[in-house]
Amino acid sequence: MPTALFISTTDDPALWLPRLAAGRPDLEVRVWPEIGDAASIDYAFAWKPPPGILGTLPNLKVIYSLGAGVDALLRDTTLPRHVPLVRMVDVSLTDGMVEYVAWQVLDIHRRGAFFRAQQADAAWHGITLPLARDTEVGILGAGVLGSACARALAGLNFRVATWSRTPKAVPGIESFAGEAGLGPFLARSRILVCLLPLTAETEGILNARLFARLPEGAWVINAGRGGHQVERDVLAAAEAGHLGGFVLDVFSIEPLPSDHPFWRHPRIVVTPHNAAGNNAAYAVPRLLAQIERYERGEPMEDVVDFAQGY
Amino acid sequence: MPTALFISTTDDPALWLPRLAAGRPDLEVRVWPEIGDAASIDYAFAWKPPPGILGTLPNLKVIYSLGAGVDALLRDTTLPRHVPLVRMVDVSLTDGMVEYVAWQVLDIHRRGAFFRAQQADAAWHGITLPLARDTEVGILGAGVLGSACARALAGLNFRVATWSRTPKAVPGIESFAGEAGLGPFLARSRILVCLLPLTAETEGILNARLFARLPEGAWVINAGRGGHQVERDVLAAAEAGHLGGFVLDVFSIEPLPSDHPFWRHPRIVVTPHNAAGNNAAYAVPRLLAQIERYERGEPMEDVVDFAQGY
Repeated sequence: MPTALFISTTDDPALWLPRLAAGRPDLEVRVWPEIGDAASIDYAFAWKPPPGILGTLPNLKVIYSLGAGVDALLRDTTLPRHVPLVRMVDVSLTDGMVEYVAWQVLDIHRRGAFFRAQQADAAWHGITLPLARDTEVGILGAGVLGSACARALAGLNFRVATWSRTPKAVPGIESFAGEAGLGPFLARSRILVCLLPLTAETEGILNARLFARLPEGAWVINAGRGGHQVERDVLAAAEAGHLGGFVLDVFSIEPLPSDHPFWRHPRIVVTPHNAAGNNAAYAVPRLLAQIERYERGEPMEDVVDFAQGY
Repeated sequence: MPTALFISTTDDPALWLPRLAAGRPDLEVRVWPEIGDAASIDYAFAWKPPPGILGTLPNLKVIYSLGAGVDALLRDTTLPRHVPLVRMVDVSLTDGMVEYVAWQVLDIHRRGAFFRAQQADAAWHGITLPLARDTEVGILGAGVLGSACARALAGLNFRVATWSRTPKAVPGIESFAGEAGLGPFLARSRILVCLLPLTAETEGILNARLFARLPEGAWVINAGRGGHQVERDVLAAAEAGHLGGFVLDVFSIEPLPSDHPFWRHPRIVVTPHNAAGNNAAYAVPRLLAQIERYERGEPMEDVVDFAQGY
């Protein structure tokens, strides 16, 4: 009987096990820390597992990350590199991110904070707003999440462009790539959205130098990883007033400490890493489909390239 | 020389006249109240004109409404009914409405008020949100604005349906019609958006009886006309707690008086009739295209049906 280990420090196994059992009645699923015989475990379904454990499973065949970002797994130096690592690309993650990004882009574009302040003052002042068709949005990242957000925002008529480290085209969307493309991409982006994977190349990319290359009044949305932003630079930029502001869903320390200055800064919107979460109802079929591909000897989808880091 | 009268109590002629002159150098445009020789006026470009004036222009050939809603013009009993009345359908009105509706639907869907309250308290609590693909939005109205909003929300994966008085299909969107269709349409709508024209049949449609037919916790967005809502019923429903709340851009009296209870009600979002406005840059080409059709003897687009009232 094939055996899987469900190992997550944040996911509730009660949401996953019944769905796994329904989809694969022949699969034994153990829940960490009840590992049992380590040698009998074929698959690990993992999210932020305690470092070191996956390396102790001698016959592991697939590690399936229950989230899209695998940076936490890759930081575990004992992670077995000969075992294919597959990351979750499920509709709930992608949809949730599209909905979060569209929501925040529209709240910036439609001046949500201005209108809420007006309501608090019982003040009635209409303003002429620009249209999305005259508003440039730039998306850092052109992978599954970046391209889905690009398409959704283009569907709302925004002038969307993507940037990626290596050239990647999203059909119908303007694209920029590499260091040479970054300057012109930033110069045109009135709303910048970070959806990059966190790698050595992208760590700290949201820094003072980058902010200075954005147009006056631009906004930055980070729905990638806390490690993408240099937080003292974010605070300095919010203070300086060259930028319109920041929308941050991710932070270097989570939960964001309650005395952190981001919480109360008028130019910073904080959401509690809630842009997109995995949802067992959508995720389990995707996960089982990859396991079945593996068992049939077919190539799995969404396999992480260890050299690239995503 | 053909002559037009620009007659608006709210639009700034300085935004319109240069564009009209650039597009039609041979058109004389007078600005009310400087009418000059009334008999020489061929066209009226009108928005909320003082009642009675359009009826005094003996050779008027076309009345062009500078906004989408013609209810104010039609309330003028002296409006000449033999003159074709054309309403503005310009990209800035349609786009603005799509952007407003998508923004507000997403702010409800993503629980904007909850997350803003959390930030004010420096509180970090993630919540599992439903996906748009599991969230039913109902749009009252399937005309230019209703169908554009339906398509945009469907593009964001919401389960969208429209309702119209007479059957109207929007390709790819579920549609309901007439009194018989209203009950099932309302029963499924977790977020209801009113984009109806204001007519004798639709006046006061947003009333206690309609609210009672919505599911528990539903939200109502009115971006149509203030006359669509029975405001004491809105307040009573907001108090009762069966509904989630209201987003209102239009009111029976505008500006909304500063002591009106809507301003400070926690379940009511007020915006100052700012969902969508005409924009001379986009509107003038559309307006001139219709005038040129008229002059070439071709049928104009967007001509109001006086019997229907829109």
